[in-house]
Amino acid sequence: MRIAALAGGVGAAKFLSGLVEVFPAEDLTVVVNTGDDFQWLGLYICPDLDTLTYTLAGLAHPERGWGVRGDTFHTLARLQELGCDTWFLLGDRDLATHIYRTAALLRGQSLNDVTHRICLANKIRATLLPMTNSPVPTQVHTDEGILPFQEYFVRRKCEPRVAGFTYSGAERSHAAPGVFEALREAGAILICPSNPFISIAPILAVPGIRETLRNSTAKVIAITPIIAGKSVKGPAATMLEQLGHEVSAVSVARMYQEFLDVFVLDRRDADLEPQIAYLDIEVKVAETLMDTHERKVDLAREVLALI
Amino acid sequence: MRIAALAGGVGAAKFLSGLVEVFPAEDLTVVVNTGDDFQWLGLYICPDLDTLTYTLAGLAHPERGWGVRGDTFHTLARLQELGCDTWFLLGDRDLATHIYRTAALLRGQSLNDVTHRICLANKIRATLLPMTNSPVPTQVHTDEGILPFQEYFVRRKCEPRVAGFTYSGAERSHAAPGVFEALREAGAILICPSNPFISIAPILAVPGIRETLRNSTAKVIAITPIIAGKSVKGPAATMLEQLGHEVSAVSVARMYQEFLDVFVLDRRDADLEPQIAYLDIEVKVAETLMDTHERKVDLAREVLALI
Repeated sequence: MRIAALAGGVGAAKFLSGLVEVFPAEDLTVVVNTGDDFQWLGLYICPDLDTLTYTLAGLAHPERGWGVRGDTFHTLARLQELGCDTWFLLGDRDLATHIYRTAALLRGQSLNDVTHRICLANKIRATLLPMTNSPVPTQVHTDEGILPFQEYFVRRKCEPRVAGFTYSGAERSHAAPGVFEALREAGAILICPSNPFISIAPILAVPGIRETLRNSTAKVIAITPIIAGKSVKGPAATMLEQLGHEVSAVSVARMYQEFLDVFVLDRRDADLEPQIAYLDIEVKVAETLMDTHERKVDLAREVLALI
Repeated sequence: MRIAALAGGVGAAKFLSGLVEVFPAEDLTVVVNTGDDFQWLGLYICPDLDTLTYTLAGLAHPERGWGVRGDTFHTLARLQELGCDTWFLLGDRDLATHIYRTAALLRGQSLNDVTHRICLANKIRATLLPMTNSPVPTQVHTDEGILPFQEYFVRRKCEPRVAGFTYSGAERSHAAPGVFEALREAGAILICPSNPFISIAPILAVPGIRETLRNSTAKVIAITPIIAGKSVKGPAATMLEQLGHEVSAVSVARMYQEFLDVFVLDRRDADLEPQIAYLDIEVKVAETLMDTHERKVDLAREVLALI
């Protein structure tokens, strides 16, 4: 049986790094959000693809949600001396990925081809697919106007109040080659514990993906990114609140209601089970806080047991 | 009085770093060879401009003819892991220059604008001008066919036998803004101790520059790149030999004969003075081996005394 997963960055990377310990990575295809992608100094940067790549390659920084473990920042320091705006921190080793990717895209390769090569070079056995080869940059509507995602997220540290999102160009985009096949062939489709607004929604905005999930006979299982009313990392809880939703896992389950079979709820939120069951979604209560390697593997086992 | 200089990389950088100690850098304009420029992984690299920049900024590696002192190679090592061809060594700090320049060129800035900004950021008081904003890549005709310059120079380590050169596109190129003004306003024009074939000839191939030198009332002074039948660094002597010239400073003087007023000959070659004088070129014998800082400054003083 093959598994497909929809993924953002850090939360997904943690979960998938546990999954590949108990499930053959060769049988896993991960459809990755590219709504966070941006260009900086001419370099094409794919934060979620890179976080997954570095994590699955065992190169990720253990605490930070980005970059390569033990990386240095000599190029960035010089760029700063040259007067560049260096609010996005890029290490020297990390930069190699962006230079390589940009050169390949400029030569006319597609993002999924480049991603495939980067995965091969990093000896990643799972298949990582960008959700689309077209640029679909997430725009964040805030009380300070519409901001490109990285402006909101990194430069403004999620401070402006969120009013909504545009996944620009999504309606004209095409799922990258392999995405529909992966979803159709999968015995289970996992929605990783990622931000529903800025990681999963952009993927669902690519024409055909939401429909494929809705019509799928495979079990669709989401793992909660919200524990006890808080996001483990990132602005998911803040966004739920600012957009007028109840700040709880229930709101996330509701966003996936039309295609979701099972919702994996954190044990701290066990009391929410009836509210989710009421949405006609099966509930599995588990330890979802992946603060140790064992817990990542345990959670993966619990999820596999559901299939 | 202002001085203009035509320059390649290392030899010119050594000489000019001495010159700016005894002559106001603000009054110096350096017209720099861009025939060695090339693109690598989408990055636009200008070896001679960079060598001059790093040297005049006090950042150059003391022995190697390229790159930044104390630089690291983390990005390059990762690019190698990603399968890139990494025969051109680029350090992490050095890379910042190429990333910055490439981004600016892609935004539509001209090479001379970018060069100006890089000089400003590096607190270089002399004016560095690319000879032209157009690509004029030097092609080396060899017994193994026509090779792009860096292929011949770095990858093939000057091993193929040279039969000639093409300065591709030179005839359609325009001198960069400021070049003609600098040459016309100069009280003296210096031909740095650079390779006549691959550093100075490309500059002279830009339409109008040779004529401007020929018609100039300023003193045109060349410093020999050949000492006792050998080039201090680089393939100048090899090229003289392979192209059928006498391997001596006289051959270099002959290449500049139509516009040269004074040739600075090394003291080891004092016996060649009559041969150069015979070309109707004034000769100054000096210590031209710039193996210490004092000697660079001394040579600069000797050259200034000629003006």
